[in-house]
Amino acid sequence: MSLSAVLPSWIGLDPLLHTWLLEDIGRGDRTTQSLLTNKASFGKAQWIAKQAGVVAGLPVAARAFQLLSNATQVDRSASNFSFISTIAEGESCTPGQVIAQLQGSLDVLLTGERVALNLAMRLSGIATLTREYVETISDLPARLVDTRKTTPGLRLLEKYASQVGGALNHRLGLDDAVMIKDNHIKAAGGITEAVAQIRGKIPYPLSIEVETTTLNEVETALENCVDIIMLDNMPLDLACQAVELIRSHHHQVKIEASGNITLETIRAVAQTGVDFISSSAPVTRSAWLDLSMNLEHNIKGFA
Amino acid sequence: MSLSAVLPSWIGLDPLLHTWLLEDIGRGDRTTQSLLTNKASFGKAQWIAKQAGVVAGLPVAARAFQLLSNATQVDRSASNFSFISTIAEGESCTPGQVIAQLQGSLDVLLTGERVALNLAMRLSGIATLTREYVETISDLPARLVDTRKTTPGLRLLEKYASQVGGALNHRLGLDDAVMIKDNHIKAAGGITEAVAQIRGKIPYPLSIEVETTTLNEVETALENCVDIIMLDNMPLDLACQAVELIRSHHHQVKIEASGNITLETIRAVAQTGVDFISSSAPVTRSAWLDLSMNLEHNIKGFA
Amino acid sequence: MSLSAVLPSWIGLDPLLHTWLLEDIGRGDRTTQSLLTNKASFGKAQWIAKQAGVVAGLPVAARAFQLLSNATQVDRSASNFSFISTIAEGESCTPGQVIAQLQGSLDVLLTGERVALNLAMRLSGIATLTREYVETISDLPARLVDTRKTTPGLRLLEKYASQVGGALNHRLGLDDAVMIKDNHIKAAGGITEAVAQIRGKIPYPLSIEVETTTLNEVETALENCVDIIMLDNMPLDLACQAVELIRSHHHQVKIEASGNITLETIRAVAQTGVDFISSSAPVTRSAWLDLSMNLEHNIKGFA
Amino acid sequence: MSLSAVLPSWIGLDPLLHTWLLEDIGRGDRTTQSLLTNKASFGKAQWIAKQAGVVAGLPVAARAFQLLSNATQVDRSASNFSFISTIAEGESCTPGQVIAQLQGSLDVLLTGERVALNLAMRLSGIATLTREYVETISDLPARLVDTRKTTPGLRLLEKYASQVGGALNHRLGLDDAVMIKDNHIKAAGGITEAVAQIRGKIPYPLSIEVETTTLNEVETALENCVDIIMLDNMPLDLACQAVELIRSHHHQVKIEASGNITLETIRAVAQTGVDFISSSAPVTRSAWLDLSMNLEHNIKGFA
Amino acid sequence: MSLSAVLPSWIGLDPLLHTWLLEDIGRGDRTTQSLLTNKASFGKAQWIAKQAGVVAGLPVAARAFQLLSNATQVDRSASNFSFISTIAEGESCTPGQVIAQLQGSLDVLLTGERVALNLAMRLSGIATLTREYVETISDLPARLVDTRKTTPGLRLLEKYASQVGGALNHRLGLDDAVMIKDNHIKAAGGITEAVAQIRGKIPYPLSIEVETTTLNEVETALENCVDIIMLDNMPLDLACQAVELIRSHHHQVKIEASGNITLETIRAVAQTGVDFISSSAPVTRSAWLDLSMNLEHNIKGFA
Amino acid sequence: MSLSAVLPSWIGLDPLLHTWLLEDIGRGDRTTQSLLTNKASFGKAQWIAKQAGVVAGLPVAARAFQLLSNATQVDRSASNFSFISTIAEGESCTPGQVIAQLQGSLDVLLTGERVALNLAMRLSGIATLTREYVETISDLPARLVDTRKTTPGLRLLEKYASQVGGALNHRLGLDDAVMIKDNHIKAAGGITEAVAQIRGKIPYPLSIEVETTTLNEVETALENCVDIIMLDNMPLDLACQAVELIRSHHHQVKIEASGNITLETIRAVAQTGVDFISSSAPVTRSAWLDLSMNLEHNIKGFA
Repeated sequence: MSLSAVLPSWIGLDPLLHTWLLEDIGRGDRTTQSLLTNKASFGKAQWIAKQAGVVAGLPVAARAFQLLSNATQVDRSASNFSFISTIAEGESCTPGQVIAQLQGSLDVLLTGERVALNLAMRLSGIATLTREYVETISDLPARLVDTRKTTPGLRLLEKYASQVGGALNHRLGLDDAVMIKDNHIKAAGGITEAVAQIRGKIPYPLSIEVETTTLNEVETALENCVDIIMLDNMPLDLACQAVELIRSHHHQVKIEASGNITLETIRAVAQTGVDFISSSAPVTRSAWLDLSMNLEHNIKGFA
Repeated sequence: MSLSAVLPSWIGLDPLLHTWLLEDIGRGDRTTQSLLTNKASFGKAQWIAKQAGVVAGLPVAARAFQLLSNATQVDRSASNFSFISTIAEGESCTPGQVIAQLQGSLDVLLTGERVALNLAMRLSGIATLTREYVETISDLPARLVDTRKTTPGLRLLEKYASQVGGALNHRLGLDDAVMIKDNHIKAAGGITEAVAQIRGKIPYPLSIEVETTTLNEVETALENCVDIIMLDNMPLDLACQAVELIRSHHHQVKIEASGNITLETIRAVAQTGVDFISSSAPVTRSAWLDLSMNLEHNIKGFA
Repeated sequence: MSLSAVLPSWIGLDPLLHTWLLEDIGRGDRTTQSLLTNKASFGKAQWIAKQAGVVAGLPVAARAFQLLSNATQVDRSASNFSFISTIAEGESCTPGQVIAQLQGSLDVLLTGERVALNLAMRLSGIATLTREYVETISDLPARLVDTRKTTPGLRLLEKYASQVGGALNHRLGLDDAVMIKDNHIKAAGGITEAVAQIRGKIPYPLSIEVETTTLNEVETALENCVDIIMLDNMPLDLACQAVELIRSHHHQVKIEASGNITLETIRAVAQTGVDFISSSAPVTRSAWLDLSMNLEHNIKGFA
Repeated sequence: MSLSAVLPSWIGLDPLLHTWLLEDIGRGDRTTQSLLTNKASFGKAQWIAKQAGVVAGLPVAARAFQLLSNATQVDRSASNFSFISTIAEGESCTPGQVIAQLQGSLDVLLTGERVALNLAMRLSGIATLTREYVETISDLPARLVDTRKTTPGLRLLEKYASQVGGALNHRLGLDDAVMIKDNHIKAAGGITEAVAQIRGKIPYPLSIEVETTTLNEVETALENCVDIIMLDNMPLDLACQAVELIRSHHHQVKIEASGNITLETIRAVAQTGVDFISSSAPVTRSAWLDLSMNLEHNIKGFA
Repeated sequence: MSLSAVLPSWIGLDPLLHTWLLEDIGRGDRTTQSLLTNKASFGKAQWIAKQAGVVAGLPVAARAFQLLSNATQVDRSASNFSFISTIAEGESCTPGQVIAQLQGSLDVLLTGERVALNLAMRLSGIATLTREYVETISDLPARLVDTRKTTPGLRLLEKYASQVGGALNHRLGLDDAVMIKDNHIKAAGGITEAVAQIRGKIPYPLSIEVETTTLNEVETALENCVDIIMLDNMPLDLACQAVELIRSHHHQVKIEASGNITLETIRAVAQTGVDFISSSAPVTRSAWLDLSMNLEHNIKGFA
Repeated sequence: MSLSAVLPSWIGLDPLLHTWLLEDIGRGDRTTQSLLTNKASFGKAQWIAKQAGVVAGLPVAARAFQLLSNATQVDRSASNFSFISTIAEGESCTPGQVIAQLQGSLDVLLTGERVALNLAMRLSGIATLTREYVETISDLPARLVDTRKTTPGLRLLEKYASQVGGALNHRLGLDDAVMIKDNHIKAAGGITEAVAQIRGKIPYPLSIEVETTTLNEVETALENCVDIIMLDNMPLDLACQAVELIRSHHHQVKIEASGNITLETIRAVAQTGVDFISSSAPVTRSAWLDLSMNLEHNIKGFA
């Protein structure tokens, strides 16, 4: 299922990783740097899953170590750090399972550990809860999609974790799709007016989605040839009618259900026949997956 | 309890807020900007709590709107945006309670909404779970402290939320205190060797903390005059003995307990007599507090 | 026609403007700063069109002056600089016409002049040539759209100028729509394979566009339910057949013609019935519109 | 002729190239990244000139690909991307000529193509028109020089293209030479007053240039020992007199002619005996040179 | 004498000041912010000179406080901080003299104090020693000039302090003048070859300076029409001959003496008739001028 | 003695080095780049000490060259630049001693020379004067510590040089220790009130230091269990009494003396029995150590 997850481009992510490493390191890792003043030393370590869950973010963790390793080497060239995942992104781990083998300078291992783990634990937590939602409806055509409720600064990574868990991404930001919500409709004086205002001003390939709460609104949306109709917090029977109305004449219009989706309610929503169900819960209600790093015992050349 | 929370300095936070706004806005808020091309319009809105919990982060949300408002005005000078919290940081809210009154340009309200809410929801979630832990031991001298398991990029804010919830902060990064962990001890050849290596190289006001798992290690730590001794995952009876050993001759040494602290176990740990109990759970296991924004009905001057 | 142009958000544009001012100012405006060492002085100036054309970019020029003015004032607060356009974006100017009235510190006027004018001249040049193309087909349903052939760093502004001239924007970058070109098709082994690969991995609201050169490819694209079909360099008669084929069963599919569009050929292409005609010429083949700044004669308090 | 062109230093240019790549890539190249999720693949491509012209900017295009390739590799070390120019900077190409051979990861080739081509097309366009101007006066001692009318953000690159075309550079910004224009003279109360104000305040090696429109002004400029005298929009006979006046006693003073220079008028201006003729036309009135990239047919390992 | 000092442009300096404030503040001013959690309070302070010297950098110190004040205010608009210098830049202070009156938020006063003082103390130290050198030769035509031996990051400010002390600036960096040193001559095969290589490639207004150590080299430099001839570590009698040789036929060529200039030797060097004497000593050998801040006694509203 | 110096982490320092290189290079090294347009060439050079002193900063200088070398190479990968120190950090050099051997591209050697030397000269100057202070009290238990009076932007490097000279570092900024000064005490209403305010709000491992000027204040500080007591400008006999008072009951409290420490007075202060003596003099009153670079004679392949 995770085969479809597309890792964010490093060219955009590297500056964030750099910032995150500096956030933890500050003016220097007093403990590790003081111990390693006069000697370099190599070490090996393992990452261990301490809980069952779906693993996500190991390439991101590896990249964090890599950036730190490059910044640590005198000549910035060939880095000797290696991070080998022993589990694929999106696969389920069991408690105690080794999920990665690490090798490199001891200071890189010790200084980078926390940031790298924090990223992988957060992303795996999201993937794990996403997977639970996805599996609940896996035999139905409806697909789970995510939302813009993501931790500031981690949008791309949390959307990636959502993909790893098996969801599709909704729009990434305010600029890659139009979403006309209640407030916009109110402000413009109606769905028709809002769509008219917007259509001539946006890049023409962009989709227009409209939030609806009644069948009347659904009909107006259809008349304005919008691309996606969101059924916002509709009762199940109303949602069924809306789906039927839309399908009757407009096969190409995509239908999204939204609003307080839980593990208990998602299956019934999917059975209304909608194409997509959006939920922020896998991001806003998931706990981090517990992972830890074990350094191998026989370290040489230290101190 | 939240009276002791110190908000991070804006001079360091503003660049992050700027980045986070841009993460969502990207190349432009297609929906709002298209509706508002030719007219400016003011609006009012309320922030509503949809769950009970401890509120944190409203000044940060206000600052996000403020930065967006300043960046939107032609002359970057007097901003007309106002965000008035109707609940103090650290106070408990009830479902349906209005927690803030907002007023300003409609485009700022609509474009900034998501980032501002995401911040306040995340921080309030942390404060809420922190408060639960804190109240469990509020009649005992032990204080809850946080850890470095924080979302990359949000360290200062999540530590702030932890304070708002009633915890004390542990070190902020790798540079404002020394923590000698198992791996460092192993690498240096022992606690004594590690402390000796480090002491002459760090800024002299910095504290040195050592992880211990046995009474022998506690004694060695005491002999090396460290400032803080962490009892790492010690069984309760062992922890009691360690506390007694330390207190018997070294009143000034601070004692911290750590390792798999839960709402069920924290009280017993506090009763061992330790000074501090560190736990990452309020950060890594809390759900976002559900908050939302309601725009007032009669908007004028719109499109 | 320019009523639909949406100015880029300052929050994203301000850092670029800052960079561009510094590119010209470098370590300081030796001439102006040396003359103005000990006294401040206010001045007035006019911007004059020296050619006929379509004006675009005056708000951007005003913003450049504003940023410079704010950075120049001791207290960074209330700026006293004013830039009042006397012509609307998208309106045609005549040679000699005053297009803006400026007032503010003399050093801001003199130091900011070149960067501000460079921006407005470049953008007005694009709007002017865009307008020529647009007017050639203004009685037909086809709309002119732009491309990703834009000057590096000026993508948002040049797309804005394109809108001011009367065109619609195509996608803004590689991330807000999918475009499957010849090379992608070749690499994937066919249109069907490419669409299958991509569909499950992109944010679901994103459109998929496919380049086609034969009727067979058009048919394959239709079978794969793509959103936009581009007719790439098709002869006019072939394009007519393609349009007919698409329209016969798939009303909702958008049709775009592309390839060596000139002022001479665009009308015939529009008459094939396509929805959109994309051309880079207004950006890559337009000359700057000649604009200049005249300082008023009686300056006081100088030197 | 292009042998004298000095490429800008990468240490200053790399951050701009990085920004420009991100401007196009945004949150990710949806098309290419989705096709290449699970496999890496190498490819070869050629850059082809589709018009005759003077080629400039190939090393800059190569650097853009190189930065993207480095940012794409897991270990940031040895990049496997190669871009081999088959034509020297400043040489003339013919339609259909292969001007570069590229080899590297398919995703780098496809994602970097547009930015790299945009740079080379823009710079080659400038070099081509510059060369036309330069050849018109190649048998005369006068040298063509450029101006500060350059695209914001591309100053160094467009000045480089100007050199490649055969022109000399005028000052690069407001800080590496003093230019006293009409407005400065007016403000200071005269040329003498302006020069006196400025001389003691600037780095002493900087040249002082003064704009003149009459013989009186030329004489005053000479009396003040300025380094360069600009004849601003002087009629040809007046310019001849000015040159004679300056040459009669002040051999070391450099003379520059400026103002509405065209391919038709430049030769007559050069014949007045001035040392330099400045014109913005090669930058502001040139079209991009049409270049394109052809991917080789047999790609392996894709999808 | 300080009337000719041109303060660096804030648009370039502000980002540095921001960085410098953050360097000191780090994750927050623990002392001041903890005391001021719940109350704002205004205060007044004075800056006092504790040594005699030449004051420089007060506007820079003021700007540092201003930036901090703006970053501290909720609405970033009208700052209430005022810093009023009671001594002009370049004037001499006496021990105990009040040199500035400050008023503003107590946290801005306390948090910004160190960075602001560090800047003013360093710059005043440079201005003080520069003045000593300048006064030694004030009755002679030769002018003291500075060098590129400046503290990394403070080039513009230290050059400004040098001006305040009464020196002229030499070139600001490697890009605003050409300096052909011994190594370049050696590499090119001779002065003639080096000048020939360089002349056609640099912006034409740039000066060319050549280092010489013998009369032969001086003659070669003259034959190549360079703009400035530096007499590098020449004995006084040789320098006199060089000056005579240059003056005999080339009045416009500027002559600079350089090499181990001290307060003891500078006057004799000036008497050789050179135009400029360059020395790094005022920057590399000056002590900071001792300045301090006194907070007024009756503070209200604190904690 | 320098064995304890911990070099700042490159991940934080590299961006500063990059900025410093650009400060000098600006828009390009006109001299070197013009000479090296068409050929690359390798060279060797030596760094020579021209004065006796303590060497510090060679790894930083090496890093500057390395960054420049990486930024200069087409493929950013394997750099061929080598900088081999022939003296250890903290060792004393004699006039004429070769302290480093350099090898690499000639343009890197020539363009990077000034920034690299400026850094090493400044840092060696600090180390040299620090060493003088340290040696004066080397047989006594008191240790010299530095202050926050450092050049803006160079805090970490100057603190490193201080360590190389043999001092311990005091706090690095406003965030890694609390220092309650006279102004804070005044504002809070007393030492007891200030400590009470602060203790619950800071990260718990942070030390609290209080400035005292009387025995009464020392006693109050002791009662409040602060970690460090600073004796501020106390006469020697008063300082002796304060030390006795503190030692009598509170062995763990650290004692620091501060205020106008000179080479003449430091020994007597150390003999009072304090643990630490803080002085800014090694940073604010040291001259740069004179170092220079000699290029080897037989350069090949140039121009």
